[in-house]
Amino acid sequence: MPETWSRVVITAVAPEVEGGAWPVKRGRGETVDVTAGIIADGHEDIAAEFLVEHEDDDAPTVVPMEEQPNDEFTASFEAERIGTYTYWVRAWVNRFGTWQDQFARRVEGGEAESLLESELKEGAELLRQAAERANGGDDEELLTAHVHALEHGDVDVALQDEIADLARKHAPREAALKSAPREVLVDPEVARSGAWYEFFPRSARPDDTHATFDDAADLLPRIKELGFDIVYLPPIHPIGETHRKGKDNAPTAQPGEPGSPWAIGGFLEDGTRGGHKSVHPALGGIEAFDRFVARAEEVGLKVALDIAFQTSPDHPYVEEHPEWFYHRPDGSIRYAENPPKKYQDVYPINFENEDWRALWQELKSVFEHWIDHGVTIFRVDNPHTKPFAFWEWCLASLREDTPELIVLSEAFTKPKTMHHLAKLGFNNSYTYFTWRNTKKELQSYAEELFHTNITEFFRPNFWPNTPDILHDELVHGGRPAHITRFVLAATLSSAYGVYGPPFEHLDNNQHPDREEYANNEKYEIRTWDWNDPASLQPLMQRVNAVRKANPALQQMRNIRFLETHNDQLMAYTKWSGENTILVVTNLDPHQPHEGLVELPLAALDLPTDEPYHVEDLLSGAHYTWQGTQNYVKLAPNETPAHIFRLHHKPKQTGEDFIMYD
Amino acid sequence: MPETWSRVVITAVAPEVEGGAWPVKRGRGETVDVTAGIIADGHEDIAAEFLVEHEDDDAPTVVPMEEQPNDEFTASFEAERIGTYTYWVRAWVNRFGTWQDQFARRVEGGEAESLLESELKEGAELLRQAAERANGGDDEELLTAHVHALEHGDVDVALQDEIADLARKHAPREAALKSAPREVLVDPEVARSGAWYEFFPRSARPDDTHATFDDAADLLPRIKELGFDIVYLPPIHPIGETHRKGKDNAPTAQPGEPGSPWAIGGFLEDGTRGGHKSVHPALGGIEAFDRFVARAEEVGLKVALDIAFQTSPDHPYVEEHPEWFYHRPDGSIRYAENPPKKYQDVYPINFENEDWRALWQELKSVFEHWIDHGVTIFRVDNPHTKPFAFWEWCLASLREDTPELIVLSEAFTKPKTMHHLAKLGFNNSYTYFTWRNTKKELQSYAEELFHTNITEFFRPNFWPNTPDILHDELVHGGRPAHITRFVLAATLSSAYGVYGPPFEHLDNNQHPDREEYANNEKYEIRTWDWNDPASLQPLMQRVNAVRKANPALQQMRNIRFLETHNDQLMAYTKWSGENTILVVTNLDPHQPHEGLVELPLAALDLPTDEPYHVEDLLSGAHYTWQGTQNYVKLAPNETPAHIFRLHHKPKQTGEDFIMYD
Repeated sequence: MPETWSRVVITAVAPEVEGGAWPVKRGRGETVDVTAGIIADGHEDIAAEFLVEHEDDDAPTVVPMEEQPNDEFTASFEAERIGTYTYWVRAWVNRFGTWQDQFARRVEGGEAESLLESELKEGAELLRQAAERANGGDDEELLTAHVHALEHGDVDVALQDEIADLARKHAPREAALKSAPREVLVDPEVARSGAWYEFFPRSARPDDTHATFDDAADLLPRIKELGFDIVYLPPIHPIGETHRKGKDNAPTAQPGEPGSPWAIGGFLEDGTRGGHKSVHPALGGIEAFDRFVARAEEVGLKVALDIAFQTSPDHPYVEEHPEWFYHRPDGSIRYAENPPKKYQDVYPINFENEDWRALWQELKSVFEHWIDHGVTIFRVDNPHTKPFAFWEWCLASLREDTPELIVLSEAFTKPKTMHHLAKLGFNNSYTYFTWRNTKKELQSYAEELFHTNITEFFRPNFWPNTPDILHDELVHGGRPAHITRFVLAATLSSAYGVYGPPFEHLDNNQHPDREEYANNEKYEIRTWDWNDPASLQPLMQRVNAVRKANPALQQMRNIRFLETHNDQLMAYTKWSGENTILVVTNLDPHQPHEGLVELPLAALDLPTDEPYHVEDLLSGAHYTWQGTQNYVKLAPNETPAHIFRLHHKPKQTGEDFIMYD
Repeated sequence: MPETWSRVVITAVAPEVEGGAWPVKRGRGETVDVTAGIIADGHEDIAAEFLVEHEDDDAPTVVPMEEQPNDEFTASFEAERIGTYTYWVRAWVNRFGTWQDQFARRVEGGEAESLLESELKEGAELLRQAAERANGGDDEELLTAHVHALEHGDVDVALQDEIADLARKHAPREAALKSAPREVLVDPEVARSGAWYEFFPRSARPDDTHATFDDAADLLPRIKELGFDIVYLPPIHPIGETHRKGKDNAPTAQPGEPGSPWAIGGFLEDGTRGGHKSVHPALGGIEAFDRFVARAEEVGLKVALDIAFQTSPDHPYVEEHPEWFYHRPDGSIRYAENPPKKYQDVYPINFENEDWRALWQELKSVFEHWIDHGVTIFRVDNPHTKPFAFWEWCLASLREDTPELIVLSEAFTKPKTMHHLAKLGFNNSYTYFTWRNTKKELQSYAEELFHTNITEFFRPNFWPNTPDILHDELVHGGRPAHITRFVLAATLSSAYGVYGPPFEHLDNNQHPDREEYANNEKYEIRTWDWNDPASLQPLMQRVNAVRKANPALQQMRNIRFLETHNDQLMAYTKWSGENTILVVTNLDPHQPHEGLVELPLAALDLPTDEPYHVEDLLSGAHYTWQGTQNYVKLAPNETPAHIFRLHHKPKQTGEDFIMYD
């Protein structure tokens, strides 16, 4: 038999991940809508409150919850501060509310006065208890006055909302049932709506000599102009010389070849070795990097660094901490391999060693080092090949001092692993977007990501390409495919990124054996034209400007796919308040396609019986549409994609529109 | 930093309810299919085991889990014993498996012999550790032999499955990660597939005098013949005289009127008072009841009693435990009411009293009393008006001695409350079936009940009528509606019940103000013809026989609705092993309807390109169908419903069929 028990049961408190095992994620400024199912035996009135407390708060904020149909209770709060919020729901049987409800029905039913009087005494007693708990002040005085009114048979007073509110306010909370806590991780806006631009700083010069961070810094104003938020750099550390890879991943580098930036650890200018906390000497060392970060801040860009926890054979860890590596039976350190493939220039770290505590601390200090240099955004290379427990500890520890931390998980692996990394603290995740190309594939993937509970913890970051991935679609689809994939990445998810230089120059030169770029920048320095009007840069600039001007494109969950009556035409709307966007893309880069887009007018708050105004945000063209079905034709070599804004009122003046240029 | 950590993560162990907060339910003999998502960092081979322990066991049974695509691991067990099973999943990184997998790829890739030798040493070391753990016996000897083979460079031995199995068998379990436990409540088969028959024993005589249990016992062979499993009796206790209700719920009973059996507590023959542990004197007292139970057992029926925790003003509790009732300010006990409605013949129990521990014990002892008289099945009246905490404690305590307990929750209330009662231990639940009449309503309700996680804990028991409910559909639809609703109840859910006498006699005489029977048996004795060939008894007998002969109809989750191209024709299949049933009903009791039933042939394992055999189990007719679409016409006054068995092979001999008569 229990010690105590409650008549109230709280079920299904949401949003939540696995019953509160992991926090849900929200970007700063987002509204968190909370729901709970709350029941009690009998036909009692239930009172429920929502309590929420930011990690820096001393006490929770308490707000009454609203009762909805079907025993649902709701509340919401604005996630105004970065960091972790904890929330609860508490509920109790609202005795005075129950009494008042029944009393009202007695009065309506015309019950005898003597019975009403007896009931009023019961109500008065409940109010008297509330007055006692009010314990001084105006509320006690008011309640006491009401007690007297009820004792004197005042039916009107007994039915007032005001006394019900007062009685509820002074209900005994110690007897209330409190739900298990739930957490909300609130991160910077850019974790939800950031546009990432990846480039190799060593290729920043107009010729093929090794560029420095000062050269790279000169590109920052142009990248900002293109509308990106974050510049993401592959590893910037000294590169190992032992077993250095040559051009196109050749097993041996020729003299002067720069090697792969992911072979971390090599010689500094003074002949000593540097690893994850050093900057490649040819990039200009830490001072040049600091100048680069300062310049980025000046132009309004954030810098993201790559964290790849592996070493070249020349990394200082190899001598200083041999126990952090796997050893073969012959005593040699085991290089990375996936038999029969071998990566002799890279040593993986062995987390299962006796000295794991020191290893964890050291790896965490790598993040801290770069945080001290002004970087709070990281792309983590292959996090799924390091223990989950390490990430859980490391990310939580880092957030104690750096709640604005953003980590992007580069885990191209199976779904459960990708999801688990997101649960334990990665803010953004690479996805299968690159390999989802047909309408069916894209829609079902988007439904899974945005319309299931996955959306509470997994923030997809869509990339049409990376240095490791040049998909056949881009190889064979040329410019139309690049445009379509870029528009899809930038509008399906609100967070996206692009490995910029080869993408904007439509580089479709694929490695003969692998789905990646030939002459891959991972192994050589390349030169790019940063102001080529024939490139995709003007389109990218336009799309990013549209993203910035339209709040609907800064959200993830607000997406709905529309019927087009054509398998090659994909259409979806996204909305935020008054802002409604319609994207239509032709997925076939070779043929024009036409179709009828079916708009859910009522759901979009558009008129069903009069014309509405449609603005093509890419071309600037304006149209007037009417009704549910609207004809759209997209020719790949002219316009492979539309991004429309749907205006709720007929256009009167320019003021009605959020203009983006 | 954690004290220890595991490379393995176990997610989503199923079946489960709210992360293991409540048991899942299975009938004895059902197979429980367990799945878990198990991942580790890197590319390691994972070993997983399933552990299951019945409450009477001293140690768990352990079986290896099978790896499926996408990091799913599966196992299953037969729920052979009634009672609670606890199960876990445990998993670890399978070092030898990982080594062997990589070694095989090295051999295939043609790696240098020197490298293979070095790798073999590593494999030998892993085997040596397993041999140590095998600690004597054949396995140690075998493993030691393999160690030597590997040390001597025997590649073939290194690749054997057998040594991988041995190494896995002797892996160190103490380092394995164990999931949180999950529980499975296994109840008697009849909880999943029982057919309930409700009748008032006091109406058992062919005239309108008050029958005894000996009269009622004479009906049992007939009820058994009709194919029912459980006879459910409204409360059998003495009925209060104070404020006794008259015919049709009249506020005052006329002399000789029997009163409502739910007004529990009244006078016994000797003038003392009896309550929930007494039998109404006119029914013959406890001895007659015991004879009734014995007779039921003899003919193969189970008896279910009604537990209604409320009293008449004449109940002994009222004098003995006044604190168990609500008191008005004037000191009188508050009768049941839902203002302005009043139920003066019933006092509700006040669970919020100081003496609640004694109250809980006493109420529990009511169950125990009837369990001692051979009853283990109960229908609980309005459980949602008693505290959830009481039920949770009471049902768990009762199951300690009576694991075969079956309790049916009569909670016609909002979904969250109905679900919560099921979670905390009710085996069966009344549903909204009675009010779901259109195809859309029925299908969406069935999808919710059988194809969402609700099915793990909530066992719907479908009733077309009860003494409290005579739906308009039956009032206006006559015989066809009665047939259709009976077939739906008996085949949609595997557990169903019927308030027999008025249903089989097509009583559609509705109370003018309420959706219930006029001349309601709750307030008067009625007479019924127990062998009326014009009644629905022959149909009911046939349907119950079909249910018994076809395992597909004894399951709940195995249902799939089919397209019929007609909104009034509803079709669904159910299957179990080789047994495949197709039900088609005409929901319109007034007009014939025809349609094309679309059969998913491949899913049903039926031939797509040759004829298959179809047997109408209600009419006995045989058909040969071919292809996906099959024409069906149902005329309400001839055949409002078909129950077909689909035979996988063309009919050869009678042996191919499970015959039911």
